[in-house]
Amino acid sequence: MSDTVNFGDVVMLMGKDRRSFIRTVTPDARLECHLGVLEHNALVGVRYGAQVRTHLGRKLFVLRPNHDDIIRHLQREGQIIYPKDLGYIALKLGIRPGVRALEAGTGSGALTLTLAMLVGDEGHVYSYERRQRMQSRALTNLRRFGLLGRVTFHLRDIARGFDETGVDALFLDVREPWDFLPQARAALRGGGFFGALVPTINQVMTLVEHLYRGPWFMLEVEELLLRQYKTIPARIRPDDQMVGHTGYLIFARAVERDAEEQREQLAETEADHPTETPADDEDTQEIPAVTG
Amino acid sequence: MSDTVNFGDVVMLMGKDRRSFIRTVTPDARLECHLGVLEHNALVGVRYGAQVRTHLGRKLFVLRPNHDDIIRHLQREGQIIYPKDLGYIALKLGIRPGVRALEAGTGSGALTLTLAMLVGDEGHVYSYERRQRMQSRALTNLRRFGLLGRVTFHLRDIARGFDETGVDALFLDVREPWDFLPQARAALRGGGFFGALVPTINQVMTLVEHLYRGPWFMLEVEELLLRQYKTIPARIRPDDQMVGHTGYLIFARAVERDAEEQREQLAETEADHPTETPADDEDTQEIPAVTG
Amino acid sequence: MSDTVNFGDVVMLMGKDRRSFIRTVTPDARLECHLGVLEHNALVGVRYGAQVRTHLGRKLFVLRPNHDDIIRHLQREGQIIYPKDLGYIALKLGIRPGVRALEAGTGSGALTLTLAMLVGDEGHVYSYERRQRMQSRALTNLRRFGLLGRVTFHLRDIARGFDETGVDALFLDVREPWDFLPQARAALRGGGFFGALVPTINQVMTLVEHLYRGPWFMLEVEELLLRQYKTIPARIRPDDQMVGHTGYLIFARAVERDAEEQREQLAETEADHPTETPADDEDTQEIPAVTG
Amino acid sequence: MSDTVNFGDVVMLMGKDRRSFIRTVTPDARLECHLGVLEHNALVGVRYGAQVRTHLGRKLFVLRPNHDDIIRHLQREGQIIYPKDLGYIALKLGIRPGVRALEAGTGSGALTLTLAMLVGDEGHVYSYERRQRMQSRALTNLRRFGLLGRVTFHLRDIARGFDETGVDALFLDVREPWDFLPQARAALRGGGFFGALVPTINQVMTLVEHLYRGPWFMLEVEELLLRQYKTIPARIRPDDQMVGHTGYLIFARAVERDAEEQREQLAETEADHPTETPADDEDTQEIPAVTG
Repeated sequence: MSDTVNFGDVVMLMGKDRRSFIRTVTPDARLECHLGVLEHNALVGVRYGAQVRTHLGRKLFVLRPNHDDIIRHLQREGQIIYPKDLGYIALKLGIRPGVRALEAGTGSGALTLTLAMLVGDEGHVYSYERRQRMQSRALTNLRRFGLLGRVTFHLRDIARGFDETGVDALFLDVREPWDFLPQARAALRGGGFFGALVPTINQVMTLVEHLYRGPWFMLEVEELLLRQYKTIPARIRPDDQMVGHTGYLIFARAVERDAEEQREQLAETEADHPTETPADDEDTQEIPAVTG
Repeated sequence: MSDTVNFGDVVMLMGKDRRSFIRTVTPDARLECHLGVLEHNALVGVRYGAQVRTHLGRKLFVLRPNHDDIIRHLQREGQIIYPKDLGYIALKLGIRPGVRALEAGTGSGALTLTLAMLVGDEGHVYSYERRQRMQSRALTNLRRFGLLGRVTFHLRDIARGFDETGVDALFLDVREPWDFLPQARAALRGGGFFGALVPTINQVMTLVEHLYRGPWFMLEVEELLLRQYKTIPARIRPDDQMVGHTGYLIFARAVERDAEEQREQLAETEADHPTETPADDEDTQEIPAVTG
Repeated sequence: MSDTVNFGDVVMLMGKDRRSFIRTVTPDARLECHLGVLEHNALVGVRYGAQVRTHLGRKLFVLRPNHDDIIRHLQREGQIIYPKDLGYIALKLGIRPGVRALEAGTGSGALTLTLAMLVGDEGHVYSYERRQRMQSRALTNLRRFGLLGRVTFHLRDIARGFDETGVDALFLDVREPWDFLPQARAALRGGGFFGALVPTINQVMTLVEHLYRGPWFMLEVEELLLRQYKTIPARIRPDDQMVGHTGYLIFARAVERDAEEQREQLAETEADHPTETPADDEDTQEIPAVTG
Repeated sequence: MSDTVNFGDVVMLMGKDRRSFIRTVTPDARLECHLGVLEHNALVGVRYGAQVRTHLGRKLFVLRPNHDDIIRHLQREGQIIYPKDLGYIALKLGIRPGVRALEAGTGSGALTLTLAMLVGDEGHVYSYERRQRMQSRALTNLRRFGLLGRVTFHLRDIARGFDETGVDALFLDVREPWDFLPQARAALRGGGFFGALVPTINQVMTLVEHLYRGPWFMLEVEELLLRQYKTIPARIRPDDQMVGHTGYLIFARAVERDAEEQREQLAETEADHPTETPADDEDTQEIPAVTG
């Protein structure tokens, strides 16, 4: 990556009021905003981190957007998955370069974009959506960041299953995810990572019941709350208002189980799931003896 | 990745009580745990997602660990950065394949490992630590997951600066991060992503004051709370106890500013930072007109 | 209240390690604790806020306990309602001197005690419990703080209803509160305050469904999270662990509705309930014109 | 309290859209609202919990307001203390019938009103405010609910101290509470309850430092987060937006300490403060032996 702006770069321009604009630098294009007009041509050669001036002399910082910026600026329709959740989902689904990940529905493409960014050129993302309009929007969003090549988009209902098999991770962001668990299990490799996001406690209950009966293990229900602070040095404090809820995150692993085990399950799950601090000290002690 | 276990694979073995063990499958090695003894040799050829039996006939699921599992099982000394924070940090620092990221201190290597996993073979991680013992532990952790080749470890105090320049992202997990801001700015490329984690509000105040006066922009203070639920279908409820605090996350961008701007700053930052819902509808509207 | 300790006073003794003991000062009684032995007789005449010494010379502060202290020291069996919830419940149920309040079950008496303390001598509390053992414990707790005279205890199942009618407020802390809604409605006066606490989302769903169909209005589901901080001046920070969940609080008002309204209800409740900041500015403006 | 409305009653009228109006029922007065006009005379004799119709035939429930309703409808100027905090503050300050409580500043009177309601006719509230305009507003609010007789209002700066001594509880809701700690200590009885609310972490730090050095004990810093849920039975979920911050609550007890102890203090406070679950089982066991 160059230290200065070139045509084709995706830049974020931000005034001191923190209003920002993400643009692909294009010959002869112009940004018209509340601070004035800025010719894209004038951006070329500017150092990242420096400022440019609009025709009114107002300054804008020239920055590279991160994931968070990009997600906030996505063309969206309906609810998107929030940055606070995206990073955690990626981590829980074991996403990294080379991974094959599947998601449904595509929605506005916030998760699609995150997955595509992280799987690299060696990995791939398969994304299902049944609404043409949503898919088009996601396509636009992915193209803008040069990530189209890493995604295969399917336009169809997922009730009749997925084309792919042996995927490493699969995420459902649909209204009734429990209806598609057999299809999900069929697409995932053994031990593969399953995730879903649902907004209501009614959905949590139904999904947990279904996962509980099926060939799934390590069922987890979690939620993340992001608290943001005002940063004026003399008066640092949490924001008065915060996002109180986006959705419940549900994770599980695709496993093999026999009928006997299904019956046994109630007892086994009674054990509390481990907290973030592993109680398994014995294990920690043993590690050095293992050839890494 | 194969569908069955091979020697050299890093596997997670988990009983129905959710106690788990991460091991590198090694010829003639054995796992001795509360459920009995398991010969590593017996794991080879087993399908991921299936179960194996110990000498006592107790079953263990054979799984691939995800980031979260790995972090929970790290050999650790002192506090580590938690999975809930790691995914978000990666996203806010713009981490993806190809990125060059720098961190200090290395600690037990939880962030090192996350960064190394996500930057891929094209990217690189530079990690500074002054305590030999900590660095050794991190090295062991990284080696175990085959990620040593993506990390350059430095054993020294960072007061005299970093060897690298032009890095895309830099994260400080040290007691007094404000002491190293000039060094951090010197190592970062223009517009580069800065992050830090500090546990106390005293540290938040001092770090914010220093960032505020320097060549930094888009200062953000945030924290993430993870709430986990019990998943017995008939009695779903949040855990009685939760992790109430790990640390405050602080982010900023490395920018260029002149003296005049430093004076102006108080006024400009008075504007609330944007919430997760972009108020910038105008921008959203304009996007279609821009060549992606 | 006297400024010095007398026999019969309920005092809290606390060492600098913050371990505390609540005792009724009794002639010739003695406290034996980890800091040594203290004769109750030696407490008489001591100023509140001062310190006394055990036979080992260790000091204990002599304090009056507040609600919070008392609740934390209650003899308990099973889960109690926490102080963070008790204050809010009292406020939502309109508890104040003179009120008649009813609760079931009594449990260890944490809410009983809070209500009894706040309704004063003019008010009264009716408390139902079917387990003899629990009731005895609650009686002991209430007697200790001199509040027995304000409470009528009933030992029986509430399925056959409550003896009282026209109570101002009624709180259910039982496993299946939906089974007792008709009885609760019969006991409450018109417009009376109903509350319940349930730990699981399954219970929330069932209770909400039942309240929704019945003669209830202003249905609210809420929960309170209490975050406590470490208070060493140089290192102020939230506690690492916090109570992540006690229970969901559910509130409603007893109203009169006809069949037509029951049918209409779905539409009406679609409107979001008001947030803490009243949107009703018009109302605020009108108030001065009203004779207070 | 009567089961039907009388002149002089303070009633809350609420439509099915949950918009509400609190009024003192006054001969010949009228409510004009978005649902139409309602003559107060028509309210007299209506049963609480029933509905009345406006001249447009729109229905309004006739309810008694609880604390929460009253606080939400207060005439306010600037920030008020929220219901979620008020109940907890009352509990932590040991407020109950007969207590003498002091507060500064009066503000819009939310806490004044809560205290006045709970101390009963036997107790009393002393409230200091230096801004005439704020005090007038609080007076109007208190008069409306018939609580003026329980409050003594002072219009002046508290720098020169409080007129009262030996009060049971004292709460500071002022910008720089640390400036008034000696005055607060002088007003409080030994062992008395001190509380304060401050919005920023800067203030928390300064106040903790001051309390730490002075004749105070059991220092606590806490905050309460209230999460409200949407209650449509088929789609129960937390509200998308929530109040993310109102203020930090700080509590302490007024004690006597000598110079030696001030020096010792650092060590003693290192011990973590007790969590909500008392570890003091020994104490719980001993209680039965104590004469209640």
